[in-house]
Parts: sequence; structure tokens; C-alpha cells
Amino acid sequence: MGKPKNILFIMCDQLRADYLGCTGHPTQKTPHMDALARKGVIFDRAFCQAPVCGPSRMSFYTGRYMQSHGSTYNGVPLNIGEQTLGDYMRRLGVTTGLIGKTHMTADRQGMKRLGVDPQGDDGILASQCGFEPWERDDGLHPDAGTDPNLPYNQYLRAQGYDGDNPWHSYANSGVDETGNVVSGWLLRNAHLPARVDKAHSETAYMTDRAMARISELGETPWCLHLSYIKPHWPYIVPAPYHNMYDSTDILPPNRDDTEKEAPHPVIAAFMEHEESRNFSDEAKRRHVIPAYMGLISEIDDHIGRLMSFLQEQGRLEDTMIVLTSDHGDYLGDHWLGEKEMFHEESLAIPMILYDPDENADATRGQHVNELVEAIDLIPTFIDALGGDSQSHILEGRSLRPLLHNAGTTDWRDAVFSEADYAWRGARLSLDLKPDQTRAYMVRTDRWKFISHDHFKPQLFDLEEDPNELMDLGESNSHQEIRREMSERLTIWLRDRRRRTTITHEEIENRTDNAKERGIYFGVW
Amino acid sequence: MGKPKNILFIMCDQLRADYLGCTGHPTQKTPHMDALARKGVIFDRAFCQAPVCGPSRMSFYTGRYMQSHGSTYNGVPLNIGEQTLGDYMRRLGVTTGLIGKTHMTADRQGMKRLGVDPQGDDGILASQCGFEPWERDDGLHPDAGTDPNLPYNQYLRAQGYDGDNPWHSYANSGVDETGNVVSGWLLRNAHLPARVDKAHSETAYMTDRAMARISELGETPWCLHLSYIKPHWPYIVPAPYHNMYDSTDILPPNRDDTEKEAPHPVIAAFMEHEESRNFSDEAKRRHVIPAYMGLISEIDDHIGRLMSFLQEQGRLEDTMIVLTSDHGDYLGDHWLGEKEMFHEESLAIPMILYDPDENADATRGQHVNELVEAIDLIPTFIDALGGDSQSHILEGRSLRPLLHNAGTTDWRDAVFSEADYAWRGARLSLDLKPDQTRAYMVRTDRWKFISHDHFKPQLFDLEEDPNELMDLGESNSHQEIRREMSERLTIWLRDRRRRTTITHEEIENRTDNAKERGIYFGVW
Repeated sequence: MGKPKNILFIMCDQLRADYLGCTGHPTQKTPHMDALARKGVIFDRAFCQAPVCGPSRMSFYTGRYMQSHGSTYNGVPLNIGEQTLGDYMRRLGVTTGLIGKTHMTADRQGMKRLGVDPQGDDGILASQCGFEPWERDDGLHPDAGTDPNLPYNQYLRAQGYDGDNPWHSYANSGVDETGNVVSGWLLRNAHLPARVDKAHSETAYMTDRAMARISELGETPWCLHLSYIKPHWPYIVPAPYHNMYDSTDILPPNRDDTEKEAPHPVIAAFMEHEESRNFSDEAKRRHVIPAYMGLISEIDDHIGRLMSFLQEQGRLEDTMIVLTSDHGDYLGDHWLGEKEMFHEESLAIPMILYDPDENADATRGQHVNELVEAIDLIPTFIDALGGDSQSHILEGRSLRPLLHNAGTTDWRDAVFSEADYAWRGARLSLDLKPDQTRAYMVRTDRWKFISHDHFKPQLFDLEEDPNELMDLGESNSHQEIRREMSERLTIWLRDRRRRTTITHEEIENRTDNAKERGIYFGVW
Repeated sequence: MGKPKNILFIMCDQLRADYLGCTGHPTQKTPHMDALARKGVIFDRAFCQAPVCGPSRMSFYTGRYMQSHGSTYNGVPLNIGEQTLGDYMRRLGVTTGLIGKTHMTADRQGMKRLGVDPQGDDGILASQCGFEPWERDDGLHPDAGTDPNLPYNQYLRAQGYDGDNPWHSYANSGVDETGNVVSGWLLRNAHLPARVDKAHSETAYMTDRAMARISELGETPWCLHLSYIKPHWPYIVPAPYHNMYDSTDILPPNRDDTEKEAPHPVIAAFMEHEESRNFSDEAKRRHVIPAYMGLISEIDDHIGRLMSFLQEQGRLEDTMIVLTSDHGDYLGDHWLGEKEMFHEESLAIPMILYDPDENADATRGQHVNELVEAIDLIPTFIDALGGDSQSHILEGRSLRPLLHNAGTTDWRDAVFSEADYAWRGARLSLDLKPDQTRAYMVRTDRWKFISHDHFKPQLFDLEEDPNELMDLGESNSHQEIRREMSERLTIWLRDRRRRTTITHEEIENRTDNAKERGIYFGVW
């Protein structure tokens, strides 16, 4: 064991924190993730900065809250002025690349304004969220708009899966009981095995690509973002994972009829979305969740394969490993589907961190209870590699002290997350403009408070009501708590890192030094 | 008269709103500014977004509040991701350039990261705040660090003023009673005439340069930022302006002994600054202010020259003209010197707007009472030239409706301004870190509320106490007002434009359209 030299940053997509064996799911099998957690630590309370792919990932990749990086939804270009993980890593001499998904949209207007050629070296990085795009694949390839050169499609064709878009027609389709090829886009087909061999699934393919790249890199220090597309929908998985689980493995939904009685207006609007209505139907929910669980077990098997590979290569000695997800999945809990709102099912993320450093030996296998956030990863990686904290830009904190010094004091006592649902039907049904759809969440040990643009807040007492079934947003007896939580949000809003182009050290060096520079003012 | 085709954006530096004839100063003579105000309108309540050169100007030049553009003090690079006036104007086919000061520092790290050559066309714009640098001169040239190629110094040498830095040794120096050359940097020398002929002063020179450029541009649509360096210190001015005013022309200071009894901690720290101590000495104040007034009258004469030139050229028919300043100057009021805090003497700015459009005829010569902000200018210019509002980035509002539709309703009821005094001695005396020095002001018709990091707030009742002599920040009878004003600040913090890379129209077009793009989720 030794100091980390490489970073393996594994992201799953839409993997709920509570769908791992090591986080307590009674039937979900994730032996390899569990084994990784035993080698490192698992954070029991880790949260995403936005429960939607794009903005959550931009927080992971910039180390900044959603409102600081400004890419508030899928498809919102990341401002060219934002620095990313790759920028920080490369300055430390670490080759940094991507295999899989980022959901980043490039700031083409910004590049044009600055004369940055999107095909040049710098332009490619600026277009790919700062990663060298060893393989960029955002994982959704509708027939209507598939890149004809998608490498995974080329790979599938080479394996004998024909057609323009075998991603869809094979990897994300099944054959129904009447022999017809049917699409995995539709929930009704979730029980069917996907039409690819498990060795050729997206998850298998991306794992292969990662191992090949790690081999190629040899002793060159690297940071690899292996970003799996699953268990995100389409909910369809190849055999044998498609029937590894059945409805007896499924936990009852976390929802109560009272939640539908007078829901918060924004929640009510989300309950009307098609995904919410379908996942509120227990029969449909039971039909789909086994596929979701199968997708997780599939990833887990490949994590096992990858870990064996790293062990053989000696890379477990010098590689920090993170396994996490961009957000959760309601799966019908709270009468909701998908994500975007702030119940734990959507907000919480798995977070396993393995540090080969012997200073982390004392905590191996532990569950860590501190509140952690997605934005903590870049500071953790910089810390592991010995860089400067960049705290004038980065808004998270290195997690290493939690591994190296069990019982670290002076940790944060609240986490924050944000939403911007301007793109959703809920905006239309609520009759809002695109700049009236923001929500801000602060969560402490006990309380979760959500402040919505234009609507009353939500409040949950996580101690008395850990399932978040009773919204106390208008409770008379909780006015003081709401005031306190609102004040926390305000302080947080003020504390964001806006002044990102100068370090604190530079400011110290320039304080009160006009005369030294020959500039006299107010001097008699 | 007709639609504006060109924009002449004249900025003075540190010109107090109340030091013009047309704003009511009883002895300050500004006949040409007054004449311009009669041609257009004068806003009686215009405010800067930060009472310091750099951040105030970055708000003028980006159309965004300080915390949105992030350049919170002089010398803080403007993030490469920020768009500027020149970007908006050029997209409308308008050549946009600078003569004078911007106080912008380029984001060299951002340019390096993106491979932007600072010497290339795009790099020059990115380095010059988006302006074509027809003549960049930030106006302070200490002997210790003068650009050897400063054009104004070259010009002075060509006129026979010798030496390495005639900006200092002639234009900003005098000859004292014993025949010694003495520096205008020192307040004690403010009574002396500067050692240049008035025809060769900075103000004269910049005006000459502007007229030459306007002639050259002919019928090409242009936006010229003529950015005077004065009446900013050094407080020294050539004859005859040096003795155009004497101590009998000076208004008594706006200050009261009670202000020193238990000042707000931040104000107390600023009162200890050298400039505050010197301007608190009435003899020194009376010694310096005549030079400040002379500098203003000097500018005024050149405004007159410039207006005659525009008239001769026919440019008054097709040019929108703004005259404003980046902030005020305490000049000893409230026992303070310089600026940075939020009393009206520092916060308020002159704002004259002339629109040749006949729709503005109805308001010519009027005083407009609506609350306006520095960030309103870019939207005004875009509006005048027929562009899109860019309201997903720009945080101000076009002022044209106030000229075209007298009595416009639905105007703002509060203005906001910010400070970040990390660079000042006050931070050291208050024992603060560089990220603990922010202050936020909201001003309504009646109330001015200032929320300080780490300290109690300030509150002034502008109706009962228009001179702002009594800080109600701890008054028991004003708790509810403070709560309301604090809530206004919070709402304002939330409403900032963070999502700048996508227009509202694009969002409308993409709302709830996944199926149209072939993407199905939550569909049974």
C-alpha cells in the first residue's frame, strides 16, 4: 500500500444509495461493491448537488454547486469560464480522461467568442468537460438522432449485431412473447432479456475499454472517469440479469396516501408526470424494478472484474478509487418516478472511497456518518495528489481527513442541493416562466428544508419522520425551524465562490500595499 | 432627429452625483453637462453596483451585478466566461472601442487554459474587457511601474514635456512656493496648478482622441466608450482650473460627531484609513476639494467641446449619449475618504441619457426619479439598436421606456450594490480572512440596508434622516424593517442570472419534448 498516484472515479447513473448490499438492501446483491467498501469506507450520508444527471455531474466535475457552475439542467452548456476536474488534474501532471457519460454540453458560443477551435486540443477539452474523450458515450441513442459513428454501435456491429442503431435494436430491445422485437424504452418490456449477450452490454464494453486504457497507461499517472450509463433507463438488461430478481425481491414502496391529499404544488405537478403515474401503479412498479436491480448486479459483476484486474496490475497499491452515482431514482416512492425532487430516494447517492494510503488503514471497512457532497471529490483528489486546495473556486472539502483521522471534528453540519425544472411539464402545468422554477434544499442531521421559487417551502423532520411522508412546510409548530433553515440557505447563498480568478494568497499579498506599488491616495 | 445608430458612453471616474450644476450643486459649474441633461434626461437616483472602480466598471461592462461577474475588486481578473458590452454591440454590427480607462484585469489563466493567444484578435478583446483598445489608459502611472510606451506620455514628450514619466512629473505635479517640483499624489499639493497646459491635460487629450476616432469612423456604426480618468485623484489640475474654486465654494461636510461615537465596526475600520483621517481634517478637506471641483469643470469644458464637435458632424442626430461615473467620493463626509462604503456620497452616480429618437422628445430636460442602476446601460444600448434583450445574462433593464413613456409603471423599487474590502487595511484591523469581507446593500425609496459578513447590519431611514447620520442597524423599533430588507436581499441573491448559456426561448422550445426527440422515459 502507498500514496495514491492514480484516480479511478467510477460513476453509475441513477443508482440509488439504498440499492447496495453494503447500504442495507436486503435482496439486492452487490458483493463486489461491498468488497470495495470493506477495502475503503462507505459514506452513509452522501448527497448529490442536483438530482438530475447534467447539473449533478457538472457539480462533480467542477467541484462547485449548481448555482456556481450555472449548468442547471441537461443540455445547458457549461460556461467556458468554468474549470473542471481535468484542469486540476493535468496541472498536477496527471493524464485525465473519460470512458462513458458526462452529459456535458459545450459552450459553443463561448468558444466562438474566444476563437477556440472545437476540434483543436484545447477546444476538445473545452467540449468534453475537461476530459480527454477516450470514449464519450452519454448512453441515450434514440433512433431519431444517433451518431452514426458511435463506437459502441460499431463494436456491436463487429460482434454481429446489425442495423443502424444496435444500441437500441439489440442492447436496449427484447423479444416479446409473440416473437416481436420490442423496445426497452417502454416500461412494459422491462421483464425481457436484452438482445445482447451479457459480454457485449454497454456495461461490459465500458469496463473492457477502461481496463484496456489502464493497461496502455502503464506507469503514467492517470485519472480515469469510468462513467457507467446504467442502471439509468431504458430499464432492460441482458440475461441472466433480467430474471435474477423477481417481485418477491422488491421492497414495498415508501409512500402513503396522505402524501396525495394536499401535496406541495410542485410535488403535485411532478406527481402528474407520466413517469410518476406509471410508477405509482404497483403492478408496473413490480414489473420494472427487477430489471433495475438486474442492471445493478450487472454493474457489480463488472466492478468485480475490474477490481481483479487492478489487483493483478498492482494498481490497488497506488490508485484511489471512488464509486458513486449522480443521483437516485424514485421508482414510485412518494408517488413519483425518476428524480429531480429532494426526497432521500432521489437525493442520496452511494459513495465508496478507497484510499491505498496506509494512513487510511484505521478506517477500512467503516461506515462514515459525516454529511458529504458530490463537490467533495475534486478536493479529495487534489489532496490525494498533493495539490493546492484551490478553495477560492472549489466549494467542497477533501474527504481524506475522514479516512485518516477517524472522528474528525469541525465537519459541515448541512448539505445543499438544487433544482431547476424549467424544462419539465411541471413548469407548464404550474404556469411558470423559465426563470421561476428553482428550488433550494438544505439538509441537516434532523431537518430537510426546501425553498421553492414562488411557492411555500417544504420541511421534513428526518428524526420523527425518516420516510419523509409528512411535509411540515406549513406546520404552525415549525415556524422557528423553517426560519432557521431559511437563514442557513441565505448564508449559503452568500458564501458561494463567485470570485474565482484570484487566490486568497494573492489577496493577502496585495492587501494594503498601494504605497509599495507607488500609488498614494489620501496621503497628505 | 432619428433612431440612434451610434453609442457614446462617457464615463467619469469618482465624480459624485451631487457635484454637477444640474444636480443641484450651488457653486460647481458644469454648464455643458447641464446642457446635455436638458437635451436628454437626468436620473436623480442612479447608483453604482459597487463603489470601487474595478467591480463597478465590470458591472457597467457586463450588465451584471458584482457577484454575478465575480470581479469583486480592482485587479481581480474578469472571468473569461463573462460577455461584455463589446460582445453585445459587435453582434449588432457595431464597432466598439475604448478611449481611456476600464480598470479591467484579463483572465490570463483562463486564456491559457483555452489556448487563446493574448496577442491575437480574440485574445486582445478578451484582455481589454471586450473593447477594441483604441486607447487604453487606466490613468494611474506611478514612476515605479509606468508602461514605457504609454501613448499619453509619448504625446506629452512630443509637446515638449520631458522625462520618463511626464504623466507624473508634469500632468500630475506642480511647483511649490519654493520652486520645487512636487507630486500631485500628495493632498498637500492640490492647490498648485499642474505643470501642463490645459490643452495637454489627460482630459483634453482623451477628448481629442475621441473626436479623431469619431471622424475616422464616418458612417460606420460605432460604440465609443470615452472613459475619463478624472476627477479621480491625484487631485491636481492645470490652470486656470486649479484656482477656479476656493474654500468659499465648498459645501460644509455631511458628518456629525455622533457618527464617531459607536460606529459600525466596518465603518470604524474605514474611518481609521489614512484617507479618512486626512479628509476628516477640515483644513485638509478645504485644501483639496477646490482641485476636485476644478477637475470637474475641466471635464465639463471638454464635454462642451465634444458636443459642439458632434453637432458639427451631424452625430447628435444618430448617437445615443450617456454621461455617468463609476462611483462617488466621500471627500470627508461621514468622516470617510475615498469610496467603497454605501452612503449616497459614494454610491450615487450622475446619469445623463440623451436619446435622439423623437419618441424621447416628450421627456427632454426632465429629471427622472426612478431608481436606476449601472447595469441598465447595456440593456439600454441593445434596446436602442434593436437587439434581443439577452435577459438570461443581463441583470438590468433598458432605460428607454423611462424616456419614451413618461410615468412608466412596473419599475423596480430597490437597487443593490456590493463591496468586498479584502484588499484594504480594514480587513487587517478587523482580523478577517479574504473571504469574510463582503457587504450587500439594498436601497429602496425610504430605506438603505447593508448586510455585512460577520457583523451586524446597517440601516438608514432616508426619509427621516436623508443625510444618513444615524445608523439604525440595532434599533429596537426597526426590527421588522431590517427583516423585510434582509428578505429583499435574499430574494435578490436567489434571482441572480447564473444560467447564462441558454436563452429563455431555447428553454421554451425544449420543454417537455423528450418524446419528440425519440427519448421515452416513464412510458409504459
